[in-house]
Amino acid sequence: MDINYQQILTEIFAETKSLKGRGKVANYIPALAGVDPNRYGIAIQTLNGETFQVGDAMTPFSIQSISKVFTLAWVFREVGEKLWSRVGREPSGTAFNSLIQLETENGIPRNPFVNAGAMVVTDFLVSCSKSPLTDILDFVRTLSNNPNINFNETVAESERETGFRNAALINLMKSFGNIENDVNAVLDVYFHQCSLMMNSLDLARAFLFLANCGVNPWNNERILTASQAKRVKALMQVCGLYDDSGEFAFTVGLPGKSGVGGGIVAVIPNLLSICVWSPELNQHGTSLIGMKALELFTTKTVISIF
Amino acid sequence: MDINYQQILTEIFAETKSLKGRGKVANYIPALAGVDPNRYGIAIQTLNGETFQVGDAMTPFSIQSISKVFTLAWVFREVGEKLWSRVGREPSGTAFNSLIQLETENGIPRNPFVNAGAMVVTDFLVSCSKSPLTDILDFVRTLSNNPNINFNETVAESERETGFRNAALINLMKSFGNIENDVNAVLDVYFHQCSLMMNSLDLARAFLFLANCGVNPWNNERILTASQAKRVKALMQVCGLYDDSGEFAFTVGLPGKSGVGGGIVAVIPNLLSICVWSPELNQHGTSLIGMKALELFTTKTVISIF
Amino acid sequence: MDINYQQILTEIFAETKSLKGRGKVANYIPALAGVDPNRYGIAIQTLNGETFQVGDAMTPFSIQSISKVFTLAWVFREVGEKLWSRVGREPSGTAFNSLIQLETENGIPRNPFVNAGAMVVTDFLVSCSKSPLTDILDFVRTLSNNPNINFNETVAESERETGFRNAALINLMKSFGNIENDVNAVLDVYFHQCSLMMNSLDLARAFLFLANCGVNPWNNERILTASQAKRVKALMQVCGLYDDSGEFAFTVGLPGKSGVGGGIVAVIPNLLSICVWSPELNQHGTSLIGMKALELFTTKTVISIF
Amino acid sequence: MDINYQQILTEIFAETKSLKGRGKVANYIPALAGVDPNRYGIAIQTLNGETFQVGDAMTPFSIQSISKVFTLAWVFREVGEKLWSRVGREPSGTAFNSLIQLETENGIPRNPFVNAGAMVVTDFLVSCSKSPLTDILDFVRTLSNNPNINFNETVAESERETGFRNAALINLMKSFGNIENDVNAVLDVYFHQCSLMMNSLDLARAFLFLANCGVNPWNNERILTASQAKRVKALMQVCGLYDDSGEFAFTVGLPGKSGVGGGIVAVIPNLLSICVWSPELNQHGTSLIGMKALELFTTKTVISIF
Repeated sequence: MDINYQQILTEIFAETKSLKGRGKVANYIPALAGVDPNRYGIAIQTLNGETFQVGDAMTPFSIQSISKVFTLAWVFREVGEKLWSRVGREPSGTAFNSLIQLETENGIPRNPFVNAGAMVVTDFLVSCSKSPLTDILDFVRTLSNNPNINFNETVAESERETGFRNAALINLMKSFGNIENDVNAVLDVYFHQCSLMMNSLDLARAFLFLANCGVNPWNNERILTASQAKRVKALMQVCGLYDDSGEFAFTVGLPGKSGVGGGIVAVIPNLLSICVWSPELNQHGTSLIGMKALELFTTKTVISIF
Repeated sequence: MDINYQQILTEIFAETKSLKGRGKVANYIPALAGVDPNRYGIAIQTLNGETFQVGDAMTPFSIQSISKVFTLAWVFREVGEKLWSRVGREPSGTAFNSLIQLETENGIPRNPFVNAGAMVVTDFLVSCSKSPLTDILDFVRTLSNNPNINFNETVAESERETGFRNAALINLMKSFGNIENDVNAVLDVYFHQCSLMMNSLDLARAFLFLANCGVNPWNNERILTASQAKRVKALMQVCGLYDDSGEFAFTVGLPGKSGVGGGIVAVIPNLLSICVWSPELNQHGTSLIGMKALELFTTKTVISIF
Repeated sequence: MDINYQQILTEIFAETKSLKGRGKVANYIPALAGVDPNRYGIAIQTLNGETFQVGDAMTPFSIQSISKVFTLAWVFREVGEKLWSRVGREPSGTAFNSLIQLETENGIPRNPFVNAGAMVVTDFLVSCSKSPLTDILDFVRTLSNNPNINFNETVAESERETGFRNAALINLMKSFGNIENDVNAVLDVYFHQCSLMMNSLDLARAFLFLANCGVNPWNNERILTASQAKRVKALMQVCGLYDDSGEFAFTVGLPGKSGVGGGIVAVIPNLLSICVWSPELNQHGTSLIGMKALELFTTKTVISIF
Repeated sequence: MDINYQQILTEIFAETKSLKGRGKVANYIPALAGVDPNRYGIAIQTLNGETFQVGDAMTPFSIQSISKVFTLAWVFREVGEKLWSRVGREPSGTAFNSLIQLETENGIPRNPFVNAGAMVVTDFLVSCSKSPLTDILDFVRTLSNNPNINFNETVAESERETGFRNAALINLMKSFGNIENDVNAVLDVYFHQCSLMMNSLDLARAFLFLANCGVNPWNNERILTASQAKRVKALMQVCGLYDDSGEFAFTVGLPGKSGVGGGIVAVIPNLLSICVWSPELNQHGTSLIGMKALELFTTKTVISIF
């Protein structure tokens, strides 16, 4: 394939700059509110070893909900199909932190990417691992081939101090019997995984195993079976961007995952993964420029899964 | 590609027969309730002109909600993007005929495949066309390359007599100002489109334009732009199977559309389309055997969009 | 009791005039929107035969939902307790015309004063009566001792033409099997009962049987048993003012019933009934001045059921 | 008045015994599950100083939600109308511990008797008092004229260990900014107030100030103004029995308050208060025999507020 990725990134970067100022940086914790809204980076990692980048692609940011894919992969590998007895595989149709669906459906979250579902996945992690924080950190370091990745304790602490909505969600699930461990222990791991600091290239690299049929390209270790990897991508496609999932499928057409830190990662099976970071969010909590950049990327490359 | 489709269909057919009796034929109208639950057929139409079939692939059945893709394509071609001001592009998270989402979101349905959304699309059709029934019938005949396709007036009449839930939905949308025409006029077209009788091969053929970048392969007429065709497939992927959309993406991984008549059509971009028909439904109103057959199809062919 | 009702009415009238202009006249049909917002009247009818009035107490207005008490009394007398198998006796907690509760509770409305519940009551009336319109009109004329009361055909017709929300409600209940008759036949009676034109004195008089243990004071005919009359008053107390029921109990403390025509009737057991009419409504559809006038009435008379 | 209360209590007791075994003792904490389901007592305290009792009227039980009236009275006296900026005065229309209403209405509970509303009231108590536990205990002792009333630490601890639903509610309100204090501090007071052990006579006595226009009859101290006392009774009438409030108004017709310990207290303004205790609950969490006993009481005495 003779696509000039570097030129395309440069074009996208130029064409989307004018959108700055239209979104809002997440401000529910000081550590996120303080991020410079003008930061903007894109990184691509291809399966044949090439990397492309533009802008602030090497600046670490708070990955937030993007981390849900890592814990899901870790737990899916560990417990397999029994995961699905406690979390669904359907789009939620309601905001990412809604309690309504949970109350009407007996504490079983709709999917692993709404906050409640991600906390159930983290609860599995806490049940399976003796040192969940170490295990998930090692996992992410290996996937991204970067041993310097770390949690941001300030962010994790901020989340803990203000995370009343998440505390409500997990207590509600606990009341339905769908959380095995102590709620504070699970929340601690959850807030830490969300606080992971990674740059755009780290994230593009860390998602490459999904483009690679489940095999970590940096050490050839199988993380998930090819079938499991497909399923994780299917979930990303259907519910990876909360209430923007349909919009993302419609305009971008790739499996993706977003975070309120402003990152979005998308995967092109058997080819590459790409991460965009721009902290200003639209009304659904998705990076406004990130979504547009990825739309342009699929338009310009004429790459689509459809 | 040297996949032996005929052998695969034969294998699937043999392996799924034992599932008969586990689902329930739709029984809300006599015309559907009377269908023999043991009917079962599969048809494939490839872009390079081959057809494969097994079982009752030539027996016409009531296509029901599968028709929503046809009216969507007709209207999308006609009115373009302005369609989306009156219907969303997100999964609904609630049952296909729920009024709750509609009430809380000002009469704007979540997507064109829930009943309410399909009725908005049909309302567009009624607004744009002088003879909506003739126009949609001609459209489907051209897409399937079969001039003998027709409505089933008995089914349409039965739907009209018992369609109180649909009457509730359309009146609710009318109260929000999201239906332009007389509610009974729109319901009449809607019930007719759902009553279309087509066999599995007709349906596989009629969806082939979506695998063909929007061009009708039977006469090379462009129905949708390549981008629009991708978007319709993205919508099918994310919300084509109601509350089974996530499950279908997870287990089958193709854009698809189901109907309570027991049909499911799926599209493999640039390759083929496939239709399975088996009238017994699971608890979400999806053909139980149809879903399993398509899962086996993607497993055996190792074809996936992911 | 030596309360000077006339003086109290005069005081209330003077003290509440300044509230004019703070509410909004119902405008969903032209016949209501055209009412002069400055009209304002109060009438009292005591059990010992005295009447008191102030302002436009003799001007007929559209009684709207106040009519629900009349059909309820008619049907309760006719069918007794079996009424409650198809309509509940609990506050709804949602707006008067919400479909959500209905969808989640199988088409059984929460109480006879939300629109859906009133339509079930009207459905009973249509089932029990050969000429429902004549019967309900005769009933109201007898209760108010005024043979000149009539429907307003213009209002009834307007309601029919714009009543899509009510059509949605009744079709939804029909889909659950909770409407016996043709939906249009029931809607026709319902829209007629709502269109009844009565003045404040008519209404005070027509509710007096509830203050009189269920006996029509004008002809000593028993309408309801004492126990049934208490129960109707209990329902008025708990859910007679839609989402203002708690507020009304809190500030006024009497069983009452409001209508979007701007009328509110309240009953003081064993003593009197009172009707206030002022067309400007608050955000819950209750007469803004009417509610304040009744609060002042219980404050000034120191009458309360509590 | 020459009603023979003692005889009426004896009759009720005899006539309702046969209902034993039809309900279920609350079993969500061991301390409640262990209560003998056959315990049954009734006590009356009249304003002119007479007491009547039958059965286990002197056996203390866990008053649970009945305590919400005490904290409400304490806080209403202390902060007055500003209470209502953070809690509504309308029936909820949903189960007592539902999060749905709270999520859709920005964390403002519908009324002070659903759990969420009671926790807001307790949050006021914690804000106003230096020793909330001592203050509320003293208050209840004074109202009931019994200095020996105490919390049950076992019950309070059990509630704390299993109260995940309440933790979800209070965290959700905290996320909306409607809880001022630390959630665990508020929960601690809340669980303690619910654990209060009182017998039926204690409770009848402690509610007598509401029948007495707000004045504590044991020491003539004014607790609430007459108007405030009426309003508390109006709230009890409209929402004191959760989803049975309409039913209770309909069949009993008195302001009342129930608890899952099996107690129900009802007030007859200017006359008396009455408490029934029977631990078996109906499906809405109300004492099954208690509700029937109070229905018989109003039937036999022909006392009603309506």
